[in-house]
Amino acid sequence: MKFSPLIEELIESLKVLPGVGPKSAQRIAFQLLERQQKGARRLSKAIDSALLGVQHCQQCRNFAEHDVCDICNSEMRQASGQLCIVASPMDVLAIEETAHYKGRYFVLMGLLSPIDGIGPDELGLNLLEKRMISDDINELILATSPSVEGEATAYYISEMAAQFDLTITRLAQGLPSGGELAAIDGKTLGHAFSGRKSMS
Amino acid sequence: MKFSPLIEELIESLKVLPGVGPKSAQRIAFQLLERQQKGARRLSKAIDSALLGVQHCQQCRNFAEHDVCDICNSEMRQASGQLCIVASPMDVLAIEETAHYKGRYFVLMGLLSPIDGIGPDELGLNLLEKRMISDDINELILATSPSVEGEATAYYISEMAAQFDLTITRLAQGLPSGGELAAIDGKTLGHAFSGRKSMS
Repeated sequence: MKFSPLIEELIESLKVLPGVGPKSAQRIAFQLLERQQKGARRLSKAIDSALLGVQHCQQCRNFAEHDVCDICNSEMRQASGQLCIVASPMDVLAIEETAHYKGRYFVLMGLLSPIDGIGPDELGLNLLEKRMISDDINELILATSPSVEGEATAYYISEMAAQFDLTITRLAQGLPSGGELAAIDGKTLGHAFSGRKSMS
Repeated sequence: MKFSPLIEELIESLKVLPGVGPKSAQRIAFQLLERQQKGARRLSKAIDSALLGVQHCQQCRNFAEHDVCDICNSEMRQASGQLCIVASPMDVLAIEETAHYKGRYFVLMGLLSPIDGIGPDELGLNLLEKRMISDDINELILATSPSVEGEATAYYISEMAAQFDLTITRLAQGLPSGGELAAIDGKTLGHAFSGRKSMS
């Protein structure tokens, strides 16, 4: 049995959402039509407005509603001389929530992945290079994830930055807070050993 | 840290989707903006069209794009004289997929639940009563789920239908196909025993 074309199209289009398969798309479609009409209207409006109004910051590539985002515009952050390289806007959020960092960001919007056709151009590395020339940066913090792509991207950027007079750092790897030692994977434990610090 | 207002509104409005909390709303919002702009546009259009074009069938209350849905319009189904009462459009789909039933439906769009303010009027039981008077119905199949609300709703409708000259049936309860006997809950096993059938 098929639903009416409008419902079929709604179900199909809901599958664009990550983790939503045919069954949950059906369930969501009926719920929206049955009980969440107001919420559904709000959602469709929010999608349209965001698609229209959200662009990339011309300096850090993060999402922004103006040419330059608030973080890049902050004089305090400019004065820090630090630039933290991350893969996605979610990473910016995660780092901001730690309140440990008060510099600026550069958002790659991905990681190097030749197999997916993501090369230096897709990550805006030419823009990053220009910033390293023109901006007053004294530390480049490579905060990509410790995955194969994250490491490769960090290595590529560190090679690119080697010609400039700045400190290049990478986030520490080791034991996560609060975990049981026995439950930690061997690779992490290895990093924790090789990166051990003197307590005296 | 806050995102820009447009992104915040997109994240907020995504929470209308069942099972989507703050974290997944963020993830979905970024994915839509980063990689699924076309899909997002299609989704917003599909929501708008469905909200505008989908209504309830005047006979069975199921979702339909016309006054009367295809199933209610079918002469073959009208001739069967059977009317199957279900809670939601998803149930119609599930029953249609079995190909075991060729009658018409009445979709309650919910189940009796006084605590949630869902009474006979919300389920369109007055419309159902009218159909029992005017239509040529000889069997009323109560196919609400075997839950507290489902049983209460089935009982309420059977009482209401008692005044009419028609057979009232309820879907059988018992062992689900393919399950391990030892894994079946006691209540289901009890129903399976009390509903046991002679094999000779």
